[in-house]
Amino acid sequence: MGIGVKAPHLSFVAHALAVAGAVMVLVWTIHFRGGLAWDSSNKNLIFNLHPVLMLIGFIIIGGEAIMSYKSLPLKKEEKKLVHLVLHAIALILGIIGICAAFKNHNESAIPNLYSLHSWIGIGVIVLYGIQWIYGFLVFFYPGGSPGLRSESLPWHVLFGLFVFILAVGNASLGFLEKLTFLENSGLGKYGAEAILVNFTAIVTILYGAFVIFTVFAQAPQEDDHSYSSL
Amino acid sequence: MGIGVKAPHLSFVAHALAVAGAVMVLVWTIHFRGGLAWDSSNKNLIFNLHPVLMLIGFIIIGGEAIMSYKSLPLKKEEKKLVHLVLHAIALILGIIGICAAFKNHNESAIPNLYSLHSWIGIGVIVLYGIQWIYGFLVFFYPGGSPGLRSESLPWHVLFGLFVFILAVGNASLGFLEKLTFLENSGLGKYGAEAILVNFTAIVTILYGAFVIFTVFAQAPQEDDHSYSSL
Repeated sequence: MGIGVKAPHLSFVAHALAVAGAVMVLVWTIHFRGGLAWDSSNKNLIFNLHPVLMLIGFIIIGGEAIMSYKSLPLKKEEKKLVHLVLHAIALILGIIGICAAFKNHNESAIPNLYSLHSWIGIGVIVLYGIQWIYGFLVFFYPGGSPGLRSESLPWHVLFGLFVFILAVGNASLGFLEKLTFLENSGLGKYGAEAILVNFTAIVTILYGAFVIFTVFAQAPQEDDHSYSSL
Repeated sequence: MGIGVKAPHLSFVAHALAVAGAVMVLVWTIHFRGGLAWDSSNKNLIFNLHPVLMLIGFIIIGGEAIMSYKSLPLKKEEKKLVHLVLHAIALILGIIGICAAFKNHNESAIPNLYSLHSWIGIGVIVLYGIQWIYGFLVFFYPGGSPGLRSESLPWHVLFGLFVFILAVGNASLGFLEKLTFLENSGLGKYGAEAILVNFTAIVTILYGAFVIFTVFAQAPQEDDHSYSSL
């Protein structure tokens, strides 16, 4: 038990940051960038699905999945179910969000997979999938032996946090990359849109930080020390 | 004590990644980008000091400072001295590295402090400085009361790791930002230099990951549980 702050209190700050980040990415893509569409002659609208799905779908829901196991006042089996279902939703929305980026690239003749953002993005989604499948098999169904479970748990937490931090960092790379493209095409470096995008990235990073602080904080039920082995 | 791997073993992997990253950033700046200079009519050479000082000076030495406290087989007071001296060197080289970026911008008429990379960079160096001063006052000289020390320690570790992760993430932002500028000016997206810069960023991220794994690994002396309170 690292820090004496209660996990649910920290998770409330994270929820507030999640709402702020979600609103900001929607204002950016809809108000400043023209809206969202899966099919359109305006290929930018296809791209816009990418930050929305990655931030709201993958990172925010993924973060809520992480916090749910620590901060919800439920029984262990119920929390486990919430945890794995939320992570599954995050993973699926993340995959759709990545498909939106490829669809935009392919329909706009933009090269694929040359940037650090794309490389790390593919790495993150693959590691996230592996982590989910391993967690499902060992901790849910069919379930490993008690020895395997207790040996796997700290690795599950550490690897999960590593992938989540990578995802948050990669979101920042994405915001910076897209904004750099726009600024190279004439967007004002100190204009409202640039400031909004930078602050969306900062809110995303703060959300990620509070998700992780929640993991190291005090669980609501004192008999639950599932995460305190780290 | 989270994971059963020994801290010195993990730190060897980190050292190897540090050497690889240092070589890569030097090859990039010297072989591909023309070299390093504090004063030059070729302003790019001034910029080149920035990635070199931030990666080798700030992140690598800062990471070694973090690991030293966990992985060196020394007495607590000796490790503390190594830890704070290495962090001081990292902080000073980081500040010089940031000055190099401003010097290049000012002499090349490039606007300052508009990008996410620059915003986070200023935040990181300020937080790093605050963390160093607080750590010095509470844990070294004049030193806080035993109660204050033991209450501060998990926060010192957590906040320190947070700032270090931010620094590593921000290095990735810097590599991506610079490479995006170069690619917009015609550099090949799949060329040798682009691949080198992306892999330098990935080696930096892996180094950061192994530094953090070291913190959660097993200390060489079993009586030292300074970090196991997390």
